[in-house]
Amino acid sequence: MKRFNHKDLLGMGQLSVEDIELIMETAESLKEISQREIKKVPTLRGKSVVHFFYEPSTRTRTSFEMAAKRLSADTVSLSSMGSSMAKGETLIDTAKNLQAMSPDLIVLRHPSSGAPHLLAGEVKAGVINAGDGINEHPTQALLDLYTIRERKGRIRGLKVAIIGDIDHSRVARSNIIGLTKMGAEVTISGPPTMIPLHTESLGVKVVYDPEEAIKDKDVIMVLRIQLERQRKILFPSIREYSTFFGLNREMMIRGAKKDVIVMHPDL
Amino acid sequence: MKRFNHKDLLGMGQLSVEDIELIMETAESLKEISQREIKKVPTLRGKSVVHFFYEPSTRTRTSFEMAAKRLSADTVSLSSMGSSMAKGETLIDTAKNLQAMSPDLIVLRHPSSGAPHLLAGEVKAGVINAGDGINEHPTQALLDLYTIRERKGRIRGLKVAIIGDIDHSRVARSNIIGLTKMGAEVTISGPPTMIPLHTESLGVKVVYDPEEAIKDKDVIMVLRIQLERQRKILFPSIREYSTFFGLNREMMIRGAKKDVIVMHPDL
Amino acid sequence: MKRFNHKDLLGMGQLSVEDIELIMETAESLKEISQREIKKVPTLRGKSVVHFFYEPSTRTRTSFEMAAKRLSADTVSLSSMGSSMAKGETLIDTAKNLQAMSPDLIVLRHPSSGAPHLLAGEVKAGVINAGDGINEHPTQALLDLYTIRERKGRIRGLKVAIIGDIDHSRVARSNIIGLTKMGAEVTISGPPTMIPLHTESLGVKVVYDPEEAIKDKDVIMVLRIQLERQRKILFPSIREYSTFFGLNREMMIRGAKKDVIVMHPDL
Repeated sequence: MKRFNHKDLLGMGQLSVEDIELIMETAESLKEISQREIKKVPTLRGKSVVHFFYEPSTRTRTSFEMAAKRLSADTVSLSSMGSSMAKGETLIDTAKNLQAMSPDLIVLRHPSSGAPHLLAGEVKAGVINAGDGINEHPTQALLDLYTIRERKGRIRGLKVAIIGDIDHSRVARSNIIGLTKMGAEVTISGPPTMIPLHTESLGVKVVYDPEEAIKDKDVIMVLRIQLERQRKILFPSIREYSTFFGLNREMMIRGAKKDVIVMHPDL
Repeated sequence: MKRFNHKDLLGMGQLSVEDIELIMETAESLKEISQREIKKVPTLRGKSVVHFFYEPSTRTRTSFEMAAKRLSADTVSLSSMGSSMAKGETLIDTAKNLQAMSPDLIVLRHPSSGAPHLLAGEVKAGVINAGDGINEHPTQALLDLYTIRERKGRIRGLKVAIIGDIDHSRVARSNIIGLTKMGAEVTISGPPTMIPLHTESLGVKVVYDPEEAIKDKDVIMVLRIQLERQRKILFPSIREYSTFFGLNREMMIRGAKKDVIVMHPDL
Repeated sequence: MKRFNHKDLLGMGQLSVEDIELIMETAESLKEISQREIKKVPTLRGKSVVHFFYEPSTRTRTSFEMAAKRLSADTVSLSSMGSSMAKGETLIDTAKNLQAMSPDLIVLRHPSSGAPHLLAGEVKAGVINAGDGINEHPTQALLDLYTIRERKGRIRGLKVAIIGDIDHSRVARSNIIGLTKMGAEVTISGPPTMIPLHTESLGVKVVYDPEEAIKDKDVIMVLRIQLERQRKILFPSIREYSTFFGLNREMMIRGAKKDVIVMHPDL
């Protein structure tokens, strides 16, 4: 039987093609469970999962909690509001306190890139990165890969365009890494101020003209502008950005494939 | 066996007399469980309930959560604080995200009247209205009906006065609908600015003088003034309101029945 | 079999030496469970525990919740944020509402000294004080006693120094009561403005010079300055306080025992 041989899930970079395939197959059998009358399996019975969210989130936290409960784990949820962070406790202090309770898994969302890696080095528990700063959001990327595979039957050989503020999107980063690893051909597009330097080294094509970028693609991912993560204004106005980079119906009719799927993976 | 044939519980208006009686009988047998040493039954084992509260609440959320857990359901709790609402997500967006997790029930409290109805149309899960704006709060009314039945042995034929800010109270609305449906005779009283127009169409008597209103009643319900839901000042001062409409001991001795019960159903 | 014959756990003052020993022995066998693969025992199956925190906390709330879940209890968590306290509900009102849900245990943290005692008088549920104002924090003290016993093999006869803002620390109070009760010899030290009057009546020695205070001690407890609980400035500056009362390495090398343990019990 194949096994997932990592203590932590910190980013798509750490996963092999086999790891990703194993996760997809496991997700497939778990998806079946979520459609049953009794949506519960004993897999994680007696295990405890701490959900630690330093950034607001509805869907990510809720889906992690619900997933843990369907697997029969006990869950505890922390947020930075109403916690000892108010008293100046650092992430490492908190990690040590959490470690003392010997949880089995910690799911961490944090505004600082690298925070889950720091935590993973301090605790015996497995750490799952649920989004760290502008670095990675691997579980969102795994979900996006799963969705693409489900809709298109495969990932290898697909042409995928990712449009928007690539530079501030941890989802874009994780998807670029995951998609290229699984054999998709990735094109990114966005205002030049939002395209990271040396992006080609990630194995993607950069096409500044969005109409050109989506041409003949199987999948188009459109990113939200992460206004809250930008330190300065990177485009003249939302309206101007929208005129050029908002994915409009006309642009799609002209350029995209008939069976293109449009995804809006966010946060 | 009788069955509750509704996907959702949105308001007292939707319930038949038989529905309400079925709920009362079920509550009676569940009440017995809450007095046992082991307060747990497997009724909802493997089901998941999302508690989604857009307004602050202690008692409603806690009692819903505890009830779900006593029935062995898995629960996840969301509040608007610390959620993606901060990022501008609408109720419909959130509904779609929740739907993707296939919960079995969603308990919603929302400041906008009609929000649970909107949600119910979007999700496969059953939706329970835990208070929507100034519209309805059916579970509070069901509890009030249960309490009255327990104390008085029946509801049919009882004389009930509801005193206070009728116009801004979703509890009053739900109680008026439920009580009249179950055959009680309802009189409402409050400053004229707090009595909705055309209230008689709900089948209640309006008596502006509170002393007159509580005369010969079996049950008196006194409402809190919903200062937070009023858009303008509807009475000169709290003190003046209180002088006339606060239910004082003297007023009760003079007018009410000896075995009257006084209820303060709130929120 | 020995039994814990108290409805509530409100402070160290209420516990006998036998009570404390019983708790230590029970903790010892539960600690073993938290190191197993499946960290779960059915002790509290079907019991419900309400965690009610009026002050921010990560570690205390999380460890209480996780402990309850490992014992198979159902837990519900309340905080003053997002609760009916916003609508002016008092602790007694809340207590009555909680009582109506018949929980088995209520864990309360509250900024007012004595709040758990007030609550305990109002509810049938057992109440555990998780920190009340500047009064007591008995579970932290029990944990500290446990840690000392584990490291030193005993408590009786040990020499313990507690350094810092004794007057505003509920942890210090609970530890002083617990340590002296268990036969340790306690010395306290801190700026004179932070030493409560008549402290000697608690059976401790007061030594104002910290170097002198830690001499020949087996255990040194260093308190955080509870800036948030002070009503006025009790020392000229953090830097001045730190120069005299911060426990520095040099001071320790000069004065303390070779096998001294230094504890930083907080909050």
